[in-house]
Amino acid sequence: MVNVAVLGYGTVGSGVVEVIETNKEAINKRAGAELNIKYILDLRDFPGDPYEAKVVHDYEMILNDPEVDVICETMGGIKPAYDFSRRALLAGKSVCTSNKELVASHGPELIRTAREHHCNYLFEASVGGGIPIIRPLNYSLTAEKIDTITGILNGTTNYILTKMDKEGAAFEDVLKEAQEKGYAERNPEADVEGYDACRKIAILSSLMCGKNVKYEEIYTEGITKISPEDFRYAKQMNKSIKLLAMSRDTEKGFFAMVAPFLISREHPLYSVSDVFNAVYVHGNMLGDTMYYGRGAGKLPTASAVVSDVVDCARHLGKTVMCFWENEDVKVAGIEEDQGKFFVRVESGRREAAMEAFGALAEINVGIAEEFAFMTQVLTERDFNEKIEKIGGCINRIRILSAQA
Amino acid sequence: MVNVAVLGYGTVGSGVVEVIETNKEAINKRAGAELNIKYILDLRDFPGDPYEAKVVHDYEMILNDPEVDVICETMGGIKPAYDFSRRALLAGKSVCTSNKELVASHGPELIRTAREHHCNYLFEASVGGGIPIIRPLNYSLTAEKIDTITGILNGTTNYILTKMDKEGAAFEDVLKEAQEKGYAERNPEADVEGYDACRKIAILSSLMCGKNVKYEEIYTEGITKISPEDFRYAKQMNKSIKLLAMSRDTEKGFFAMVAPFLISREHPLYSVSDVFNAVYVHGNMLGDTMYYGRGAGKLPTASAVVSDVVDCARHLGKTVMCFWENEDVKVAGIEEDQGKFFVRVESGRREAAMEAFGALAEINVGIAEEFAFMTQVLTERDFNEKIEKIGGCINRIRILSAQA
Repeated sequence: MVNVAVLGYGTVGSGVVEVIETNKEAINKRAGAELNIKYILDLRDFPGDPYEAKVVHDYEMILNDPEVDVICETMGGIKPAYDFSRRALLAGKSVCTSNKELVASHGPELIRTAREHHCNYLFEASVGGGIPIIRPLNYSLTAEKIDTITGILNGTTNYILTKMDKEGAAFEDVLKEAQEKGYAERNPEADVEGYDACRKIAILSSLMCGKNVKYEEIYTEGITKISPEDFRYAKQMNKSIKLLAMSRDTEKGFFAMVAPFLISREHPLYSVSDVFNAVYVHGNMLGDTMYYGRGAGKLPTASAVVSDVVDCARHLGKTVMCFWENEDVKVAGIEEDQGKFFVRVESGRREAAMEAFGALAEINVGIAEEFAFMTQVLTERDFNEKIEKIGGCINRIRILSAQA
Repeated sequence: MVNVAVLGYGTVGSGVVEVIETNKEAINKRAGAELNIKYILDLRDFPGDPYEAKVVHDYEMILNDPEVDVICETMGGIKPAYDFSRRALLAGKSVCTSNKELVASHGPELIRTAREHHCNYLFEASVGGGIPIIRPLNYSLTAEKIDTITGILNGTTNYILTKMDKEGAAFEDVLKEAQEKGYAERNPEADVEGYDACRKIAILSSLMCGKNVKYEEIYTEGITKISPEDFRYAKQMNKSIKLLAMSRDTEKGFFAMVAPFLISREHPLYSVSDVFNAVYVHGNMLGDTMYYGRGAGKLPTASAVVSDVVDCARHLGKTVMCFWENEDVKVAGIEEDQGKFFVRVESGRREAAMEAFGALAEINVGIAEEFAFMTQVLTERDFNEKIEKIGGCINRIRILSAQA
């Protein structure tokens, strides 16, 4: 029997209990042992809940119980999750988490602590919800040099952008509707400003490099400036607009960015709609692969946490492979990154735009007050200099290159 | 050092050598040991090849060398691959293979033999080329009850159907072109008749069930009867035609089938084009996930073989988890399977069709000689009875339901 404690009986935590109960037989077979929920840590009581008797309020009970093998940290946030996780690992108890914030900020330290204490710190659920992506990177793509990861990693923003695309609605209206449906938080900043996607791409990028990519160093731009007019242009170009989180290991350096991108209909990420997520990975032997599924939600996320519990149960006393060293990756400033841009300027700036950019492709959807075009490939620095000189910029959106 | 022997220095075999050489550093780090190609078995000599000195013609040399830990079987076919693999496993040497024919026909036996001799029989490359799908099923979706797998598992037919869709070309012409480009074999039967996809879905279905799904029991229909006219209708319905390999574990029984299907633009499999493959998996907690990438080709397939070698190197003396028992799954006859059909009949049969099927949706692309329609959901048996009664059927294609 493998005893499990769940920290936080909220959405994901209760999902973990539900998954272990519903698929008991199959899970125990794969774990090679019976999984037993021994404790649920929460500040609240749950009178009438079938697991009521397992609820405890004091973490020390769990920590001091030598029978507890695996801890599911489904609390979120840094405090007290970091302290709880660290102490569990120091006691040789494996930790499985859905907490991308904690993994992005303290991943390498917790992984090292696990290794030193012959247990595991696993975080499949921290990126892409139920999509298997951490384990494929660690266990499957082992013959590859991965050089590019491009992901739709936030369900809320993808839902909002999909709605805007399909219905021509404004950002604020769709956000409000998403909040009413529970797809967006009352304080939506972490999602719509790209902070959530930023932490997730930091985790994936670190696994890609085997070293630490600090999320604070990743250029991050949200979707709040995207308008229905932008989608009119996008449609005209046979494209859509998606919030992409990407990183590229190139000869010119390591680039990472979260920003809205125009993306062509032919690209497999184009059809990733609503709350779905996908991760597009390029390796030097394999070319492109993509992993697609529900990026959030109680049961999908819980399923990923439980898959980590199974992994822990099968490797009690052993640490499974994960390369994420403490050494920081030097993240290049995006000024040297390059690509094409879609630009809308006031119509009076047309001549100046043509002069500054030379070859450009005009896009017209019949808005008389403005002039819109696509640039050639140029660096972010060049682009910013030119656009400042021209003035009157209404909006600009990066265009995903065919290679990414 | 982990010594590796490669059986067959053809496309995939030479790819294995190339992948191990090119990504040496990263691969050895992940394997936790240096991989050393000690032997290459081939009937031919390769004068001038950098690995010329490793080429041997006698399998006994490899089998009798206690230093050989892992064997890559990239020969294909049953004879002598089956015998070679079995004897390797009996000698405690792990085998990594791209041979779907052998895995589909002798999988459970070879897996059991490996288990009994503390080594591994791994076959990531046997399905979906470079797409990680076997390992995600075995290691990642461990908290799931998987009930449906729907795959585009054959690159040749997907290339042909994509070309027919985009260019309105006839099957024979595209096949000829594909043969000239090397995308199709001179004898294309295994691909175009669906036999290759059938073996692959048998493997995936067996892993889904944990028991043996015999490929001989899977209803298999190829793409040779698909015409440009069918694609004209498909376009009219906002659909495309794909050769799908699918299996479903339902309350009514276990159903499996390989056949061309009409598939809607909204479905993630719709945009899987050209030689790409994808596997769409439904689990009871997770909902839908999809795995996408290059389903064939030298380096992608070799990358998957090498990922198996890495797994073997990290588990020398131990057998990794794989549930595929010898017990046969009872495959239900497709007569009881149900779905919607697209049908083209001679125009004179219009009244009879309307009488037989009741509610039906007409589709018109302006071919006067025929009458085309979509049926409601009905069983294969019902459908066949009705269509026989009506007579004059020009073609019929199944329609993928929104749930699959």
